[in-house]
Amino acid sequence: MFSVSVRDHFMIAHSFKGQVFGPAQKLHGATYVVDVEFRRDELDPDGIVVDIGRASDGLRDVLAALNFRNLDDEPTFRGRNTTTEFLAFVIHERVAAKISAGDLGPHARGLTSLRVALHESHVAWAAYEAKLGR
Amino acid sequence: MFSVSVRDHFMIAHSFKGQVFGPAQKLHGATYVVDVEFRRDELDPDGIVVDIGRASDGLRDVLAALNFRNLDDEPTFRGRNTTTEFLAFVIHERVAAKISAGDLGPHARGLTSLRVALHESHVAWAAYEAKLGR
Amino acid sequence: MFSVSVRDHFMIAHSFKGQVFGPAQKLHGATYVVDVEFRRDELDPDGIVVDIGRASDGLRDVLAALNFRNLDDEPTFRGRNTTTEFLAFVIHERVAAKISAGDLGPHARGLTSLRVALHESHVAWAAYEAKLGR
Amino acid sequence: MFSVSVRDHFMIAHSFKGQVFGPAQKLHGATYVVDVEFRRDELDPDGIVVDIGRASDGLRDVLAALNFRNLDDEPTFRGRNTTTEFLAFVIHERVAAKISAGDLGPHARGLTSLRVALHESHVAWAAYEAKLGR
Amino acid sequence: MFSVSVRDHFMIAHSFKGQVFGPAQKLHGATYVVDVEFRRDELDPDGIVVDIGRASDGLRDVLAALNFRNLDDEPTFRGRNTTTEFLAFVIHERVAAKISAGDLGPHARGLTSLRVALHESHVAWAAYEAKLGR
Amino acid sequence: MFSVSVRDHFMIAHSFKGQVFGPAQKLHGATYVVDVEFRRDELDPDGIVVDIGRASDGLRDVLAALNFRNLDDEPTFRGRNTTTEFLAFVIHERVAAKISAGDLGPHARGLTSLRVALHESHVAWAAYEAKLGR
Repeated sequence: MFSVSVRDHFMIAHSFKGQVFGPAQKLHGATYVVDVEFRRDELDPDGIVVDIGRASDGLRDVLAALNFRNLDDEPTFRGRNTTTEFLAFVIHERVAAKISAGDLGPHARGLTSLRVALHESHVAWAAYEAKLGR
Repeated sequence: MFSVSVRDHFMIAHSFKGQVFGPAQKLHGATYVVDVEFRRDELDPDGIVVDIGRASDGLRDVLAALNFRNLDDEPTFRGRNTTTEFLAFVIHERVAAKISAGDLGPHARGLTSLRVALHESHVAWAAYEAKLGR
Repeated sequence: MFSVSVRDHFMIAHSFKGQVFGPAQKLHGATYVVDVEFRRDELDPDGIVVDIGRASDGLRDVLAALNFRNLDDEPTFRGRNTTTEFLAFVIHERVAAKISAGDLGPHARGLTSLRVALHESHVAWAAYEAKLGR
Repeated sequence: MFSVSVRDHFMIAHSFKGQVFGPAQKLHGATYVVDVEFRRDELDPDGIVVDIGRASDGLRDVLAALNFRNLDDEPTFRGRNTTTEFLAFVIHERVAAKISAGDLGPHARGLTSLRVALHESHVAWAAYEAKLGR
Repeated sequence: MFSVSVRDHFMIAHSFKGQVFGPAQKLHGATYVVDVEFRRDELDPDGIVVDIGRASDGLRDVLAALNFRNLDDEPTFRGRNTTTEFLAFVIHERVAAKISAGDLGPHARGLTSLRVALHESHVAWAAYEAKLGR
Repeated sequence: MFSVSVRDHFMIAHSFKGQVFGPAQKLHGATYVVDVEFRRDELDPDGIVVDIGRASDGLRDVLAALNFRNLDDEPTFRGRNTTTEFLAFVIHERVAAKISAGDLGPHARGLTSLRVALHESHVAWAAYEAKLGR
């Protein structure tokens, strides 16, 4: 299996609901350094997994819709805890949609799965990975 | 698949038996920076993989039983080479036991597998991963 | 010159005032990974720069007063942009106060200067350094 | 599953053919920081995954055949784009050949799979992983 | 003293002249991960060291003039070994010129010094630092 | 000022004397990842700070004399706590001696100062820096 990964980041405010979150129930924030790993079984005709320029641009677009926001105010996330692991899932879904839509180039449809990791500090990170539907 | 990872470290002395270890047959030591990745298929009712506070505390407890020791003197490891890969296995076993015992919270029993990686320097690391029994 | 450095982190929400901040004028947040470098000319009688346990605890205390907060609501910062560089200064001041108060041990009064660096992402960080008054 | 990983690097010049590569069609270069992960189900009789000294030496040999080269001039790569993902495959193949040849020690034949990751910058990396044939 | 640092990278081919360079006398290449540290004694009226957006853009412009090049073909560097330390100096000079020209904003003229570090691998880096003339 | 830095590591056992060290009074160990920064005002005739090959070899030699040892048994360190900061000083002294002896090449005598940093974990490091005598 081949993979290519790109890194970017976004910065948000949010709060959590539930005793399990302790002091994180208060409004606070985070920088998330995001790694997206694109995977496929064979290289495309250009000898690549994905056009890395388009992949980076696609990720930047997805993160721009979250960056510099208070996620508590986002209608999409109403009633959800925007935990690191949940946000990894959200970004996975949105990058996958871009792939389906052809935004990462025609060959990107040959991608088989995606892993999205969000680093919230030097001692904690979360990830979501899943196959890509066709 | 979702995952959450936490990082901590411990510092030990030890020596190895066997020609393959060369100069590491002498008493020396290591700092191990430890990453534990907790995995599950679906998020729990709070929208998390595991209570990260409890996960960090659980890992700290497991490492405290190793930290600032000469592993050559530990009865548990008698006759074993406490290599990086073997220690990854030991920590995996001990964190898994804590999960079974409910120390990481009731929802942690939904965890399906665990990966433990030990970084011994900027150029070498080892890991052990396995499913969690129920 | 000798130095010892310790690392910790905190997570906050805030917003900035001023056109120069662009989208960061909206409420957002950040994880700050904090490095504090303690400096002195000669080692103390124990052969150390500072008691690293007390230094880490002292830093944790200072960060606990900021962690999981919306800095826009903190009276101390009223009318100030809590930029990364400004927060480095604030933490410098607070750690220096702990040193003066003897919280880092009696020998810590031999420290001559302090550097505080705050990493806000994998591509941006800020620092403040200054001598310690006696 | 157990794994041991070692890190090394090499520095090359090359150019790419194909519009998808944009400015990288011109002769340029890269430092590749290479991580090789050796995997097996059970530890060998010495309690290790692989002799880490031999593994590091084997990787150094493989990289020495690429280091300080203009890959456009290498007959082996004629007509191929030496992309990061393709080079991960090449190094995988060459390290696997060393394992088969017994260069990493007799027990290394118990290795089941290999993952080779090449970091081309702080924001992009690629990998190839595959089982080892016997 | 306050500082703000930003990170970016560029990828080039080059060769060196002189026996001291050994195999690096052949055409090869490098990825340089570049950190620029902007320094000043007091924060500007917005509470910042420099407009980080403009600083990042300024650095990107400077690196764009080097990126994806064979430095052996650049007239500017004729007769010079484009070593990591020399390139740190070149980038220092070019970022300083942008500051003088007002490209990083009017307050950036209050910057007092600059440090440019180039990481060529995980085990080697070089830097140049100097005061800024006015 | 120009600088070039190289990284290497060593692994030792030791124990400390003094209540301030708490559990580290017991025999334990550490991996130290070592960064040596070589500094000078002007580049040498080859356009470099120091021959990076010789600098790396020199550092490896210095670390080889410490690597895989129990420092409590080393006559040189009798009656001393081999703290991270003290070991940074020791390595500084030994690398400086190599420079004086001409082991890093004739131009290395133009080096003006040296900084040695030892990373003992992902959250703690120490350094010693001083001018080089002539």
